[in-house]
Amino acid sequence: MALLDEDRLFPPDPDTRAVAHDLYAQIKHLPIISPHGHTDPRWFAENEPFADPAQLFVTPDHYVFRMLHSQGIALEDLGVPRADGGEVETDPRKIWRLFAKNYHLFRATPSRLWIDHAFQEVFGVSERLAEHNADAIYDQINACLSQDDFRPRALFERFYIEAISTTESAIDDLRWHKMIQDSGWTGRVTTTYRPDAVVDPEFDGFAQNVERLGALTGEDATTWAGYLAAHRNRRAFFKEHGATASDHGHATARTEDLPQATAAALFDKALQGKCTAEEADCFRGHMLTEMARMSLEDGLVLQIHPGSARNHSTDVFSRFGRDKGYDIPTRTNYVDALRPLLNALGGRPDLTVIIFTLDETAYARELAPLAGVYPALRLGPPWWFHDSYEGMMRFREMATETAGFYNTVGFNDDTRAFCSIPARHDVARRVDCAFLAGLVRTGRLDMEEAVEVAHDLTYRLAKKAYKL
Amino acid sequence: MALLDEDRLFPPDPDTRAVAHDLYAQIKHLPIISPHGHTDPRWFAENEPFADPAQLFVTPDHYVFRMLHSQGIALEDLGVPRADGGEVETDPRKIWRLFAKNYHLFRATPSRLWIDHAFQEVFGVSERLAEHNADAIYDQINACLSQDDFRPRALFERFYIEAISTTESAIDDLRWHKMIQDSGWTGRVTTTYRPDAVVDPEFDGFAQNVERLGALTGEDATTWAGYLAAHRNRRAFFKEHGATASDHGHATARTEDLPQATAAALFDKALQGKCTAEEADCFRGHMLTEMARMSLEDGLVLQIHPGSARNHSTDVFSRFGRDKGYDIPTRTNYVDALRPLLNALGGRPDLTVIIFTLDETAYARELAPLAGVYPALRLGPPWWFHDSYEGMMRFREMATETAGFYNTVGFNDDTRAFCSIPARHDVARRVDCAFLAGLVRTGRLDMEEAVEVAHDLTYRLAKKAYKL
Amino acid sequence: MALLDEDRLFPPDPDTRAVAHDLYAQIKHLPIISPHGHTDPRWFAENEPFADPAQLFVTPDHYVFRMLHSQGIALEDLGVPRADGGEVETDPRKIWRLFAKNYHLFRATPSRLWIDHAFQEVFGVSERLAEHNADAIYDQINACLSQDDFRPRALFERFYIEAISTTESAIDDLRWHKMIQDSGWTGRVTTTYRPDAVVDPEFDGFAQNVERLGALTGEDATTWAGYLAAHRNRRAFFKEHGATASDHGHATARTEDLPQATAAALFDKALQGKCTAEEADCFRGHMLTEMARMSLEDGLVLQIHPGSARNHSTDVFSRFGRDKGYDIPTRTNYVDALRPLLNALGGRPDLTVIIFTLDETAYARELAPLAGVYPALRLGPPWWFHDSYEGMMRFREMATETAGFYNTVGFNDDTRAFCSIPARHDVARRVDCAFLAGLVRTGRLDMEEAVEVAHDLTYRLAKKAYKL
Repeated sequence: MALLDEDRLFPPDPDTRAVAHDLYAQIKHLPIISPHGHTDPRWFAENEPFADPAQLFVTPDHYVFRMLHSQGIALEDLGVPRADGGEVETDPRKIWRLFAKNYHLFRATPSRLWIDHAFQEVFGVSERLAEHNADAIYDQINACLSQDDFRPRALFERFYIEAISTTESAIDDLRWHKMIQDSGWTGRVTTTYRPDAVVDPEFDGFAQNVERLGALTGEDATTWAGYLAAHRNRRAFFKEHGATASDHGHATARTEDLPQATAAALFDKALQGKCTAEEADCFRGHMLTEMARMSLEDGLVLQIHPGSARNHSTDVFSRFGRDKGYDIPTRTNYVDALRPLLNALGGRPDLTVIIFTLDETAYARELAPLAGVYPALRLGPPWWFHDSYEGMMRFREMATETAGFYNTVGFNDDTRAFCSIPARHDVARRVDCAFLAGLVRTGRLDMEEAVEVAHDLTYRLAKKAYKL
Repeated sequence: MALLDEDRLFPPDPDTRAVAHDLYAQIKHLPIISPHGHTDPRWFAENEPFADPAQLFVTPDHYVFRMLHSQGIALEDLGVPRADGGEVETDPRKIWRLFAKNYHLFRATPSRLWIDHAFQEVFGVSERLAEHNADAIYDQINACLSQDDFRPRALFERFYIEAISTTESAIDDLRWHKMIQDSGWTGRVTTTYRPDAVVDPEFDGFAQNVERLGALTGEDATTWAGYLAAHRNRRAFFKEHGATASDHGHATARTEDLPQATAAALFDKALQGKCTAEEADCFRGHMLTEMARMSLEDGLVLQIHPGSARNHSTDVFSRFGRDKGYDIPTRTNYVDALRPLLNALGGRPDLTVIIFTLDETAYARELAPLAGVYPALRLGPPWWFHDSYEGMMRFREMATETAGFYNTVGFNDDTRAFCSIPARHDVARRVDCAFLAGLVRTGRLDMEEAVEVAHDLTYRLAKKAYKL
Repeated sequence: MALLDEDRLFPPDPDTRAVAHDLYAQIKHLPIISPHGHTDPRWFAENEPFADPAQLFVTPDHYVFRMLHSQGIALEDLGVPRADGGEVETDPRKIWRLFAKNYHLFRATPSRLWIDHAFQEVFGVSERLAEHNADAIYDQINACLSQDDFRPRALFERFYIEAISTTESAIDDLRWHKMIQDSGWTGRVTTTYRPDAVVDPEFDGFAQNVERLGALTGEDATTWAGYLAAHRNRRAFFKEHGATASDHGHATARTEDLPQATAAALFDKALQGKCTAEEADCFRGHMLTEMARMSLEDGLVLQIHPGSARNHSTDVFSRFGRDKGYDIPTRTNYVDALRPLLNALGGRPDLTVIIFTLDETAYARELAPLAGVYPALRLGPPWWFHDSYEGMMRFREMATETAGFYNTVGFNDDTRAFCSIPARHDVARRVDCAFLAGLVRTGRLDMEEAVEVAHDLTYRLAKKAYKL
């Protein structure tokens, strides 16, 4: 028995399904462009085997452990490390059994599709995971992991990845990227400039981070001019390690375009830890515009990922730290929030700003109308919780009529879960083919156009938007 | 001719329809679990015949009279009682004729599905209601109502209700529930603890209600400690009458977790009628957390029904009072609003908080992500205006990928309209089977899993979540 | 080859498609009722030929030039006039070539459907526009335009327009409407009373506009009483030129019902240019209620078009002026905003208020519940960005279950693009038939009812609501 239905995610109507099939056949073998994500460059630098099935599929995947936890399973029992270093489950097989026993919780979720895809396509598993076969599947995957064919670089090549981008802090030394570059391996692993730690006055250790930014660049980053110069310097360093984009994760989509003296004064307050919450937000917003200005100089693409209420549970945050599944999407305003940046630079066709959202209500109402007129603005693909069959379909249905296809930028997998990358891209390709098939069958697109668009959505738009 | 299409609400594609059929065949005869609703316990206590067709279908059903009214029909002409006791239509046949003449207004509404279902399945009507057959159908239904088979208990059994919950004010004497218990009849009719009258400082007669709470419990409910003790006492009394849940209808989803001294001071102000609107809202929010704490002691499930702007028309409110179709859904924030309660108690797997919404935009953005991580939180089914084919489908499409099925709690009919109960549950079952069939046909769920999930959604999840 | 698929926009499932076909066959030849739009009455008054293909399809259509602009094409290169009268492209063939070369940008947009429909049905074009056939298609359309059959009145008749309404400022002299009336031509072209220029204190030249209003009516419009009298007078004048409605485009849906003395004081401040933004908003809101009161006297239908953030790009506004594609939909609250007007007059069945939205999230949550109970309130069809296949389908899916069909008012094309009018109405008819076919196939509507509803949605509801 196969875990995966060959026709999965295609429209049920037979004629429409046939169209989706034909489209998919023409793009399914295209290489993967992964222009935004969170894989660990160390994997590709050191090329060590992955540890065990639980480490690969359960413990680091917030989609997985949050669902198990929601039904009352303690994070400790899933091996999630405690902030105080206290005891948690360390036996991967025990963790795996707990996962297997509760695998029904993932029914109809994207995690289930991704995991089953990796099980079947990467590890040759052919039975649905459950309590009774937990050990057998564990053993089967574990046996694979010790083989050279399952090391990170081998999987990278097998996954047919043409280019993948990781995300590093502005003050990261990029040692793993350097090691990859120096190794002679030809896999293309690029970095992305993520300056939250030195741009967000409320970030842990902001002032020290800025100091470190200065030290890394030889600039006096405690002055406004030096701080901007340090960013320029650092962006150039990231570009040397392949970066074609910066990325910014803010609580809101707010942008500002302050007079330089005002920005400088705010920066001083931020360094002294004296910003109010409002001032910190204002400063972050202004820095997006500064970053956009630097993008006009150095060509980096500007990505904005707004709208997550991080660490919603104070208790879980204090016991386990960040990124523990307690980041919740919030209602996000774009019309007012993006206006300062767009007024300053949105008319520039030589700038690319890619905007993401966790608030789907903005697709048709705000984002598609904005991206459908401002030359600099493009829409990022469905993100976090929405990078799923229904989420992707809603994105196409709500954004396409106003923004068209060519103000979008292809797919991002945005993941740490390396083995899920082919699965995620496959889901995106299938959903796009399903959507296009619907357009063809309802007379909204010719078949020959649909083929071209399918190729664009799968490959060309991402390469072009991210300059890969 | 039949009023009802045997295949109603199933997907049009023949293969998908066949899957839906197969699933439905396996669950359509399961008993009804109705864990939240507003039927009148007096019906089951006294077991008197229902009055007449207009009283059964038109005058008390806000879904029905609001639609007629929206096209210019006066509420008086539908027999809706005036607050001043002034004259309204009292001839049920006249009311019925008005309803029949305008029955086309209900095309494509859930009311139409519910009413036709009751007409056909309960009363054997086989023609669509219209002006020309108004009297004939009136007579047919009226003739039924005088028969013993159409008394409340007989219908209860015929509807195959395993358990139904009514909703009573915290200061209700539960006399009808007692009468049912004492009667020896085996139908399971339980109550629900609804303390709005003694928890909401803006409720009519709040201070007197609290006084009455004290009198009923022997506590000095005018002190904070006595007030909490009175709640505990009263909850225990409701449990004796079958309650397994409390229910809270607030204008917003706000929760608070105040220091006890602050809460006590606010309570004093509330008793003196000196709360500002903001303070009243804060007090209501705090009381949700107190109720959750009591739930940890006594096991009652906590239901929150937020977001209705009640009595939107001042004129209709003053002439006819509450619940006259002028309650309008509002945009509701959950991420910030639920945080205090969830921070205090959301990690407790021994607590069940069921959250409802009138704002569908929160399904994918806020509610599914919250319920998909907090052990205590579950999502209530589509509610009020959204408990319809399209509304239920949107709920499944928007909530399932992130919350899964097992953070939901089955169906609530939430109705006063007794004869619509089988219809409403049938609609929910059909929509769920339609949704599951789509998952099966697009390779997102195996058929054998779908059968299990259909059973869960129809029966097991409600019993488990509500401890019935 | 045909540009248009005969089955376009019908559901893919063959049986459902067949139902849609049958329904469409019964209504496709009905005359067009266009109760709200922005065609130029001068066309019909003078009946001069249209200038050239670029003037007809590209330069004045904000849907078209915004999409081209979003991909970096300068508005100047599309011939969009500059505010300072500076140089822009004037060669229509050059503009057309740019349009043709980028026609792929419109894939899956409503513009593509409308343009292809006009190409095929009006001008006999049979090939998809592209760079290689740009000149040929230009020549073909241009050759048509010089023929008498393609003059405005001939097209009006060929389009089978029974009635069309234009929109004029309250201080317009309606000379073109008079000229049409005097010409003896029988085409029905009516005006609509649009008083934004004399109702919005923030409108350019508000005080002078009010003075002009006084001059036109012989009232002292600088006093509150005189101002209201001038409106009454002007509305009567518009009625003489066929008006059956007024229309109001405000940034929000806010209404107010102020005491007359307060309104008068605010009006004085407005005339003196001393209103704060909040006071201006309050005054606009109050004037909606005044207009509704006048509607009760003179029978004009009140249309409200709220929620557009106009001129989002300051740069484009300063260089090109209004209506340049930079108007962006915003989140809009209706529950609180409409309450004052609805409380004052919403219970009047002799009043018709038609409310539109750019915020689709309000359909199911706010607008359908409001229109489903207030006798005076009706829902306008999907508007601007949402008057598309997906947008119309979402409207029906989200509004119908609560508001029914009979609290809606048929279709508005709301366009300046004359040749797109048959296309837009055809899209609306097809989508409605597709939606109704789905209802029939899922047992929610009988076929004979669907035929009646299709006729209502296409023709009768618009005539009735707009009193045409």
